Amino acid sequence: MDLEKIRVVQYGCGKMSKFTLRYLYEHGAQIVGAIDNNPAVIGQDVGDYAGLGTKVGTIISDDADRVLDDTDPDIAVMTLFSLVSDIYPHVIKCVERGINVVTTCEEAIYPWTTSAALTNQIDTIAKETDCTVTGSGMQDIYWINVIASVAGGVNRIDRIEGAVSYNVEDYGLALARVHGVDMTPDEFEQKLAHPDDIVPSYVWNSNEALVNRFGWTLRSNRQENVPYIAEQDTYSSTMGKTIPAGKVIGMSTVVTTETFQGPVIVTSQIGKVYGPDEGDLATWRILGEPDCEFELKKPDTPRHTCATMINRIPTVIDAPAGYVTAEKLRQVEYLSYPMQLYVGGGIW
Amino acid sequence: MDLEKIRVVQYGCGKMSKFTLRYLYEHGAQIVGAIDNNPAVIGQDVGDYAGLGTKVGTIISDDADRVLDDTDPDIAVMTLFSLVSDIYPHVIKCVERGINVVTTCEEAIYPWTTSAALTNQIDTIAKETDCTVTGSGMQDIYWINVIASVAGGVNRIDRIEGAVSYNVEDYGLALARVHGVDMTPDEFEQKLAHPDDIVPSYVWNSNEALVNRFGWTLRSNRQENVPYIAEQDTYSSTMGKTIPAGKVIGMSTVVTTETFQGPVIVTSQIGKVYGPDEGDLATWRILGEPDCEFELKKPDTPRHTCATMINRIPTVIDAPAGYVTAEKLRQVEYLSYPMQLYVGGGIW
Repeated sequence: MDLEKIRVVQYGCGKMSKFTLRYLYEHGAQIVGAIDNNPAVIGQDVGDYAGLGTKVGTIISDDADRVLDDTDPDIAVMTLFSLVSDIYPHVIKCVERGINVVTTCEEAIYPWTTSAALTNQIDTIAKETDCTVTGSGMQDIYWINVIASVAGGVNRIDRIEGAVSYNVEDYGLALARVHGVDMTPDEFEQKLAHPDDIVPSYVWNSNEALVNRFGWTLRSNRQENVPYIAEQDTYSSTMGKTIPAGKVIGMSTVVTTETFQGPVIVTSQIGKVYGPDEGDLATWRILGEPDCEFELKKPDTPRHTCATMINRIPTVIDAPAGYVTAEKLRQVEYLSYPMQLYVGGGIW
Repeated sequence: MDLEKIRVVQYGCGKMSKFTLRYLYEHGAQIVGAIDNNPAVIGQDVGDYAGLGTKVGTIISDDADRVLDDTDPDIAVMTLFSLVSDIYPHVIKCVERGINVVTTCEEAIYPWTTSAALTNQIDTIAKETDCTVTGSGMQDIYWINVIASVAGGVNRIDRIEGAVSYNVEDYGLALARVHGVDMTPDEFEQKLAHPDDIVPSYVWNSNEALVNRFGWTLRSNRQENVPYIAEQDTYSSTMGKTIPAGKVIGMSTVVTTETFQGPVIVTSQIGKVYGPDEGDLATWRILGEPDCEFELKKPDTPRHTCATMINRIPTVIDAPAGYVTAEKLRQVEYLSYPMQLYVGGGIW
């Protein structure tokens, strides 16, 4: 048994990293580097920054090359951006040095078709340098692998329906506007229902991962924007006003995924102004024999995302080289013990 | 790739076997034998018996030894009884011949402490003859392995709380009486709350499996009977009367499981007279960081149990020899393809 600690660089020291740094620390990782370009955090000890109650001796730096050259990390925990094109240069810095990467980047959960060229470039370099790149977070478990777990008790799947959500209030005015908040249904239909360019939503990628998780092949993906109409007057702090019943309070991006084997996956990603008792949604139905429905109630999306990332580390380190999406990896396990015990066939 | 079909003996041709036989048939198993001692079914072709729309050529027989001697099954699907002491002689007939067994027997999900001697005897013989015995069904996934899947996105577990249920109306008058139906709370307290002999409930076994699934060790198990009081008048067809609000309509068997590592598991197995809109429950909370709660809504327990059993077959065939409980096996997978593809490293 190898009791060497797992060495980690935290790549991106924003809001999410306060969770990931603490979770790493609690599970016995050695935080050897931390990278961010925000002047407000550069120069801070990560122990102070993340409120660990102790200094770790590792200082947040904006010189990514220097951090990666002067440390010997097993893996970078990358909490940056939502698109593969944005994380690409940062991932390349890691994989050129043979450093594994696990990232919260939402598209990275299954970017094989939405960013095929970049993903294949990363895959090629990672195979040359013998490291692994994986996207993880909330979707890894609650939009993909738990659905597969639940389906283990199902005889026949005809259709899978999912609904996941986030609160538009958490992301500022620009996002509220592109979600149609305060529009009439007619305005929404004219301006947002039929965009010229479809930007694949996060559930586009997670649906593709589900298709591969079940061993099916993709026939088609179709995405629609559907307005979410207020059933009652709803106050939006972002808009600074009450949205009256009958107007739009957000939208649902519905991705319908067909497979050549028959089963269809329809997942709605809902961004709306939450009412006072609402929380995030993760509700799934499997239609077949038997039908079944399950719900994760008001999940704490940031903490689940960060816990999943950290719990993923042993399986990424143990994975074959290349860009390996999460649905192909060993199941992510709760870490009952310090994480090094889960690497290399220790506990799992 | 080995395209030899999986050969199966259906051991027990009662209510559940109508599902398991059809699921086996749909997933490409070869049903080579069928055993039951009920005169009403002996002599029937299993295709006729299970409504497959075709004869299979295999006749239900009450001569278990003859069936097992005259066929070469890879596995017996045993849908008999709830206690290991009851299935024991039937399991022995299989393992002495080197035939794998998967069984719905509820105690069999984790019988290492509740039936230690018999389980170790089965384990010893199975290792001599190179076959595997596993208990499966609803609990395998929805009381054990899905909890582990969901926990993959949790940083720290302090406590796990579960509630599962069944309808007392489905099991006759004797069961309704031992569940205290129509008693006053005082009568329940005197007659049922403190039994002299505690018969471990099914969640006693599944809690122990959960402890092992997370790599913890068992400090103690405690079981209590708690009355379920009617909040409104509730008609019981089994009792042939309406139970007034304030009287008992069933009971909850609560098992509290402590571990040496700290986490506590408290699972309630509820047997009560259902109201018109009620269904089976499988609700779980993980308390820690973050807290999370998930619910399988009104699960179709018989179909989930039977689908899980059949989907389990490839992992039981591939398992090491011995009595191998389900929490130690590879994850049970939905069978997108005929089941032989999942054995021996084909698809998984």
